[in-house]
Amino acid sequence: MSELSASKRSIMQMNTFERDAPAGGLLARRVANAGAMSILFYREPLQIVSAQGAWMQAADGTRYLDLYNNVPSVGHCHPRVVEAVSAQLGVLNINTRYLNEGVERYVESLKARLPVALDNVVMTCSGSEANDLAMRVAERVTGHSGYIVSENAYHGNTRAVTEISPASLPVADLPDHVIGVPAPGRRNYGDDVAGGFAAAVIAAARTLDERGHGLSALVCDSVFSSDGVFTDPGGFLAPAVDAARAHGGLYIADEVQPGFARTGAGFWGYAMHGVTPDMITLGKPMGNGYPMAALAAPAAHLELFCADVGYFNTFGGSPVAAAAGQAVLDVIEQEGLLERAATVGAHLAERVRHAATLSSAIAEVRGRGLFMGIEIGQQGDPARPDGVAAARVIDGLRTRGVLIGAAGTYGNTLKVRPPLCLSLEEADRFADALEAELASLQESGRADG
Amino acid sequence: MSELSASKRSIMQMNTFERDAPAGGLLARRVANAGAMSILFYREPLQIVSAQGAWMQAADGTRYLDLYNNVPSVGHCHPRVVEAVSAQLGVLNINTRYLNEGVERYVESLKARLPVALDNVVMTCSGSEANDLAMRVAERVTGHSGYIVSENAYHGNTRAVTEISPASLPVADLPDHVIGVPAPGRRNYGDDVAGGFAAAVIAAARTLDERGHGLSALVCDSVFSSDGVFTDPGGFLAPAVDAARAHGGLYIADEVQPGFARTGAGFWGYAMHGVTPDMITLGKPMGNGYPMAALAAPAAHLELFCADVGYFNTFGGSPVAAAAGQAVLDVIEQEGLLERAATVGAHLAERVRHAATLSSAIAEVRGRGLFMGIEIGQQGDPARPDGVAAARVIDGLRTRGVLIGAAGTYGNTLKVRPPLCLSLEEADRFADALEAELASLQESGRADG
Repeated sequence: MSELSASKRSIMQMNTFERDAPAGGLLARRVANAGAMSILFYREPLQIVSAQGAWMQAADGTRYLDLYNNVPSVGHCHPRVVEAVSAQLGVLNINTRYLNEGVERYVESLKARLPVALDNVVMTCSGSEANDLAMRVAERVTGHSGYIVSENAYHGNTRAVTEISPASLPVADLPDHVIGVPAPGRRNYGDDVAGGFAAAVIAAARTLDERGHGLSALVCDSVFSSDGVFTDPGGFLAPAVDAARAHGGLYIADEVQPGFARTGAGFWGYAMHGVTPDMITLGKPMGNGYPMAALAAPAAHLELFCADVGYFNTFGGSPVAAAAGQAVLDVIEQEGLLERAATVGAHLAERVRHAATLSSAIAEVRGRGLFMGIEIGQQGDPARPDGVAAARVIDGLRTRGVLIGAAGTYGNTLKVRPPLCLSLEEADRFADALEAELASLQESGRADG
Repeated sequence: MSELSASKRSIMQMNTFERDAPAGGLLARRVANAGAMSILFYREPLQIVSAQGAWMQAADGTRYLDLYNNVPSVGHCHPRVVEAVSAQLGVLNINTRYLNEGVERYVESLKARLPVALDNVVMTCSGSEANDLAMRVAERVTGHSGYIVSENAYHGNTRAVTEISPASLPVADLPDHVIGVPAPGRRNYGDDVAGGFAAAVIAAARTLDERGHGLSALVCDSVFSSDGVFTDPGGFLAPAVDAARAHGGLYIADEVQPGFARTGAGFWGYAMHGVTPDMITLGKPMGNGYPMAALAAPAAHLELFCADVGYFNTFGGSPVAAAAGQAVLDVIEQEGLLERAATVGAHLAERVRHAATLSSAIAEVRGRGLFMGIEIGQQGDPARPDGVAAARVIDGLRTRGVLIGAAGTYGNTLKVRPPLCLSLEEADRFADALEAELASLQESGRADG
């Protein structure tokens, strides 16, 4: 039964709080204000009042080490980003129908880190908007309308993007023009992940042809975050990308999760695979919390698209967004956060892999740099996904003052992606807590059994 | 020929700049960075470096009185909003999966200004995201998939919302499930705007039934901004709303343009019509430039929607967005901007109507508060739309240091919507410049004729 124990919908799977909250309390007010849209972490949701670096502080004074949030990527409330945004807010915050030096300087800083062929950048407010636009551009360029994504992919919240986000939909509702292929892990493809995943993509492309859609794009979050974090072996994506192109489709790299140095293996997640995307979408960590995102694409693609349709984004690419984005790039550079993601990530992986040897519930430890997935299975039979045990570990870590999340079709993969400023000591603190929590899980497993 | 002289696509119609810009200059850099997405005002685009109140300053030192931008609604770089956002940025900027007092306080401040029945608020990053979600909710509630919009409506930039935005699409590309009805003006409906517009909505609803879509919603920007600003007579929308509901559809008020006190006739544009929307979308002026927007809907509607689909918005409703939004509400209240929009707007209208009597090219002066449309026609035959003359007036005003825009199917309506802090003196300054520019147009018309 454990396969069914966690909701299929990973973006809602942690929404377990008690809706009958005490009247007048903040939780009751939230439910009154947002109703069914009240997505909250934990059975007893946290009331957070402030945050700095990798730490968040709750209203009751408890401090939590944050290993979940990748939006405040260079650290919560990083002073340099706060200063840059605040200064620009006082000078000019306007749309891009006027020229502005800072905006072009930022786009050029970004382009210096992107493939040369992707010479145009469209600034948007959210990764959802960027992916929505990328889909429409891909359809114009290819003349096709079909999509291949991973089976628990999440690419955003607009109508078009939700349709290619199985994580947001009941399985039966995946539309005709979208096929979800099993996530690129050993569970699905054995030792030949590259070959197996490419074969799945080829089969899906043929099905899209048969259905009359053709392949518009293979869209992949480069770390397959919502599928449960799949990063190895490096290069496994390349044959799938080749296959997509051979079928007349584009390869869109969704870098909303792994981008901006998180993997430690390159500035962008796709770099692990030695591939060059046809288009790239950026988001979450881009402005350290300032709402901004982007699509990078070849000028010729946008030229085609704009021949048919008007597109303008009011808030996208404002001088304030540019100031936030530039500050994030500068901080990553000056604080050596790419290198830190690699070294602290390697240390974290070593500690977690050691913890795994002490537990009979860990199926696999995956990831790169400061993006890890720790897959939890049944005690003694870790190949059987156990979302309940994963939820228990997450709750247990919370009581130990550490915040992480879950991912994967069965909600059984611990998702670990702290701000990139995480120190070795903070990594150890998490690893210690995880070891203790896994030991407690082991203990209760014995008691139950 | 003048009917055809302006592009059908109002969001791109001012994109007339010379693309062969001097190499190394800012315009050339912009074109290299954004390609076909380089939407810019004026043949010689303005390089803006700073802005305060209703004024923007260009790189060459020229100051421009801004009667175009409604995003910096309480004034460019309003110190109170800047302070509120800056302070919150340094304390906490996180997603809504954690509880936060400031966020709920803001939503409650907003709800206090909204219809009681619309008791849930979903915070998003852009009006596009809000409208995209509103459409999906409406379809779930009604079981229908068709839309009625005005014939040059603009509701945003996602795929779903672009489909209900004729302003972004060639006429032939309006999809089967969308019908654009002529804008609610005397040109289309004579003296019975209310009856004529309702009849058009009824006919469109029947067509949607025949096509098998049924009516999901009548979606109206409450001031019909991109159609050319249609606000009178007050109440004209009510019979159309009744008709939409009688056909099983909802009425969605898109308040992205008129909301937050701009009309001076109420906090929201729909108030002019004595109607209560089934859902309301908010955007542009909501955070005075901070990227934020929202959907207000009955809890039961969202409950239905969420039963099928996961929805979460990463940046939407952060404590920083709440701080920006709360500061905007506070400034509107404390600076009496609703009253100012009414009084300065009335003065502006009086001056413009006087100018109109001196010109044989003004077909109509429309609007409420600080949202005006001035329709330009051919000299001596103002009923014939003249987009070229409108563009000439806009360019002429720019050389006189005043910025406005254009709207309408033929691009022939001057769109005037300054920051709400506009003073009587600044209104006079615009009116003087407009009078002079219309006189110059008259003069050249005589010379040409």
